[in-house]
Amino acid sequence: MLGQMMTKPLLISSLIDHAVRYHADTPIISVNTTGGGAEETSWGAVGHNARLLGSALTKLGLEPQARCGTIAWNNRRHLEIYYGASGGGFVCHTINPRLFPEQLVYIVDHADDKVLFVDATFLPLVAKLRDQMPKLEHVIVMGPHEDKLSEQLPGVMFYDDFIQTGDADYQWPEFDENTASSLCYTSGTTGHPKGVLYSHRSTVLHAFASNTLDVIGYSARDIVMPVVPMFHVNAWGAPYGCAMSGAAMVMPGPDLSGEALVKLIDGHGVTLAMGVPTIWLGLLTYARQAGSKLDSLARTVIGGSACPPSMIAEFRDTYGVETVHAWGMSEMSPLGTSNQPLAKHKALTEEAQHKLRENQGRPPFGVELKIVDDHGNTLPNDGEAQGDLLVRGHWVLDSYFRMDDQNILQDGWFATGDVATLDEDGYMTIRDRSKDIIKSGGEWISSVELENIAMGHPKLANAAVIGVPHPKWDERPILIAVPAEDETPTEEELRAYYEDKIASWQIPDRVVFTDALPLNATGKVLKRTLRDLYGHVLEGAK
Amino acid sequence: MLGQMMTKPLLISSLIDHAVRYHADTPIISVNTTGGGAEETSWGAVGHNARLLGSALTKLGLEPQARCGTIAWNNRRHLEIYYGASGGGFVCHTINPRLFPEQLVYIVDHADDKVLFVDATFLPLVAKLRDQMPKLEHVIVMGPHEDKLSEQLPGVMFYDDFIQTGDADYQWPEFDENTASSLCYTSGTTGHPKGVLYSHRSTVLHAFASNTLDVIGYSARDIVMPVVPMFHVNAWGAPYGCAMSGAAMVMPGPDLSGEALVKLIDGHGVTLAMGVPTIWLGLLTYARQAGSKLDSLARTVIGGSACPPSMIAEFRDTYGVETVHAWGMSEMSPLGTSNQPLAKHKALTEEAQHKLRENQGRPPFGVELKIVDDHGNTLPNDGEAQGDLLVRGHWVLDSYFRMDDQNILQDGWFATGDVATLDEDGYMTIRDRSKDIIKSGGEWISSVELENIAMGHPKLANAAVIGVPHPKWDERPILIAVPAEDETPTEEELRAYYEDKIASWQIPDRVVFTDALPLNATGKVLKRTLRDLYGHVLEGAK
Ligand SMILES: Nc1ncnc2c1ncn2[C@@H]1O[C@H](COP(=O)(O)O)[C@@H](O)[C@H]1O
Repeated sequence: MLGQMMTKPLLISSLIDHAVRYHADTPIISVNTTGGGAEETSWGAVGHNARLLGSALTKLGLEPQARCGTIAWNNRRHLEIYYGASGGGFVCHTINPRLFPEQLVYIVDHADDKVLFVDATFLPLVAKLRDQMPKLEHVIVMGPHEDKLSEQLPGVMFYDDFIQTGDADYQWPEFDENTASSLCYTSGTTGHPKGVLYSHRSTVLHAFASNTLDVIGYSARDIVMPVVPMFHVNAWGAPYGCAMSGAAMVMPGPDLSGEALVKLIDGHGVTLAMGVPTIWLGLLTYARQAGSKLDSLARTVIGGSACPPSMIAEFRDTYGVETVHAWGMSEMSPLGTSNQPLAKHKALTEEAQHKLRENQGRPPFGVELKIVDDHGNTLPNDGEAQGDLLVRGHWVLDSYFRMDDQNILQDGWFATGDVATLDEDGYMTIRDRSKDIIKSGGEWISSVELENIAMGHPKLANAAVIGVPHPKWDERPILIAVPAEDETPTEEELRAYYEDKIASWQIPDRVVFTDALPLNATGKVLKRTLRDLYGHVLEGAK
Repeated sequence: MLGQMMTKPLLISSLIDHAVRYHADTPIISVNTTGGGAEETSWGAVGHNARLLGSALTKLGLEPQARCGTIAWNNRRHLEIYYGASGGGFVCHTINPRLFPEQLVYIVDHADDKVLFVDATFLPLVAKLRDQMPKLEHVIVMGPHEDKLSEQLPGVMFYDDFIQTGDADYQWPEFDENTASSLCYTSGTTGHPKGVLYSHRSTVLHAFASNTLDVIGYSARDIVMPVVPMFHVNAWGAPYGCAMSGAAMVMPGPDLSGEALVKLIDGHGVTLAMGVPTIWLGLLTYARQAGSKLDSLARTVIGGSACPPSMIAEFRDTYGVETVHAWGMSEMSPLGTSNQPLAKHKALTEEAQHKLRENQGRPPFGVELKIVDDHGNTLPNDGEAQGDLLVRGHWVLDSYFRMDDQNILQDGWFATGDVATLDEDGYMTIRDRSKDIIKSGGEWISSVELENIAMGHPKLANAAVIGVPHPKWDERPILIAVPAEDETPTEEELRAYYEDKIASWQIPDRVVFTDALPLNATGKVLKRTLRDLYGHVLEGAK
């Protein structure tokens, strides 16, 4: 027997409709992609344009769920495309502009993109590759008409004109909530990039979860700056979560330097900012130099790679900013866990409470985690046992887009490729990507743990640890260290710094200094490149 | 084309599983129904018993979605039944013990209850009516075996024994998320009570919405006391919302006197309490006398009837407690709106900000509201136009349980029976139940507004306003006033109190004093009874 309640589909269009109805004049600040400051618009105007766009795309005669690619920074037109494309029943396919050209061509072809929206800054790139994208029908530059851009790619359309072909009284279509809404390829480290095809239902449920207090919990009083790019797992869902709650947004555009971000925070009263640790390194350095107190900022959500405890401490002690350490991945929309305390933790010492905030936290309702050994046996949740992390839930992928012969789930669970521990209360500590964990003489060493310690050293700006081949131990850790400005730490003092912090057999064998770490398109350290560069340093060691 | 995400059903059993996994030792305090203080249990233990119960009910051989009635206060066994019955695929049917016996018999028969769980205090009532419930198969007293209770109703079972017939390794069944989960009859003012049949999906989505910050937003650090009964729209969903977020709960049992509630708040550090205004009247009176500062309490959620502004002010100014004024109804699970400010309101004067918190607020994502005139035309949202309030959304009913010939929706919208205004930002002010609004010479007068003003008078403990027949004006308002202890306000001073607050033609024609107002089973003033009692007082007036 069924319940007797209304059953409306959970659709992305209803998120923007809600924001338009209840938060029409809430500001959306959008930094211009091609320079010249920021523009202020609003949820009302974004919703209006999204509707025009949905209509204009429909008039193009696209098939339902036709893919509409985007190559763009975080800006208000990108937000309009999120809603206009998905709302209109098409698939918003965000593409990472930092990919290699051949990957980009592969993705556009594999996704079968019919329309490609590009920020003007990416037009030269697209113009160069256009011939290799024969199935693509329309390229639309995200801005007003400019002759000099038309010259770069004949036949190109302009967003501001294009949406005017749509009808203002266009009504969003209604369809099955499991319909595909958006697509994002993971910058896989081996083989071709793989597409994750989100649905309206998974997106709306994820937005609900992100709005629970112990995950992010946007409010109508928040001013939210997603520094995490909109081409990376939908900016962690912020565009959806903020519309659901009516939070204001600051879209930072292309310049993610510490200086630019501090100025946006101070200039627009940002209360909540989200991004990967490397971004915050730059921000903290600049804030220190410039003497900003980041007054408005109450919270940061940090994830994408492990957040060094020293970063959490600096945000807390110097700026009074709470850091919510979160973990997730493209395959899970991305929110998997976030670190918020329990009631019983209030009884602990302050130091113990701080310590507890360092790991990746626990999952919200809607996601389940478990760790297993090599034979798939579930391991205990004792904070000690480490194993392969498996997940399942309402916003976890089931299979990759258009890949045959997929058997990616293990008994209904998705294997994340991370190695983790889980404690009794369900708090997770990511030990490593399984391919990055260091196997030294049969024992496992967590590169993440060694990096976290190094990041606490005052003379270092950044640090990475990799395992490199060793004649005796199979693999041993080495530390790749980026000195802070005007500092010249020595190998000896850095190795000594580990001494009272971990077992001596875990201390990196060598320290190599460099000016900068290689980062991938989403700001994560490219360990593969580091292994290529430094894989030989322990050759001949004993 | 569908998305490629996991599609698991949204089931109530996954809420309790989440609480058990992540909040096993979070306390559930449960006041004993039959006296003798409170017992402390936990989400872990509640979940364990719920699973035993689901198994035990299954072994009884009940059909899927068989109705399991409850006649009980807010206590931990009731919580276990919420999860055990619904989780096991049965329907948890909460029955209001304050109904007339003939209504109670009608409901048990109409719902076709197979099992009836009763608090020991209600056993005499059930024993008396047992013969009139021939289809009912099992009566289970919510407690341990007691011979003297067996004697009252031969064949009765005992909850603590009954659940031991279940298996601890019982697995919750999986089924369609639209399956019926729970049933609640509205204490209709005319005709038979009508049943609202909630589904697993509507309940979980409602729990998500209740967990957004601008609705309630439970956290794992909250200690929540639902004073609103579990037999009244599932205690506003608190049992589900708290499990989702891992909040601790204090279940107050039968004694809802001001004294009992203040002691529970102070004794258990309650941070968030929910209930109807009449309950808080008693609480505030006692707190004033006893000198409690309600230190732990941060928020109250008040709804069910209009919350007088003076109550919001007293909570705020005397106790530093934030009041969230909310509106809803059984037919909407119940959350419809809640009052939280917008970012732009920070710029207003403090007084203006306080004023804005007085109305019923705006809806969360998932509910839509509109007001219409007598011909069904949508009225403007200008804060002035008042009309019949219609709603729709994911947790709004579609039709009543087992009623034929239903045409209750108007073009997909449910007519609430309330008269309201909506302003530009979507904030709603309930003017009246449509049957309570006072029609004086063609103009409408809001009884709610007149009551709110009267409640601000220091010499009054409670007040109600009704429209009574008038020879010239059709209807005129009269005030039914309950003096505060040791006060003897006069009719003149009360009428004079209205003078600078509303237009003079809206001032009540008469004031009638009484010791107490008649309340219905959920603590709302019975205006129908007042009209029966006082309907004649303006006979012969001019
Ligand atoms: N807070 C975190 N700590 C450690 N690793 C993380 C964290 N957040 C994300 N990751 C890593 O990033 C991966 C997901 O990458 P992506 O799909 O590109 O977002 C995860 O599987 C983790 O290995």
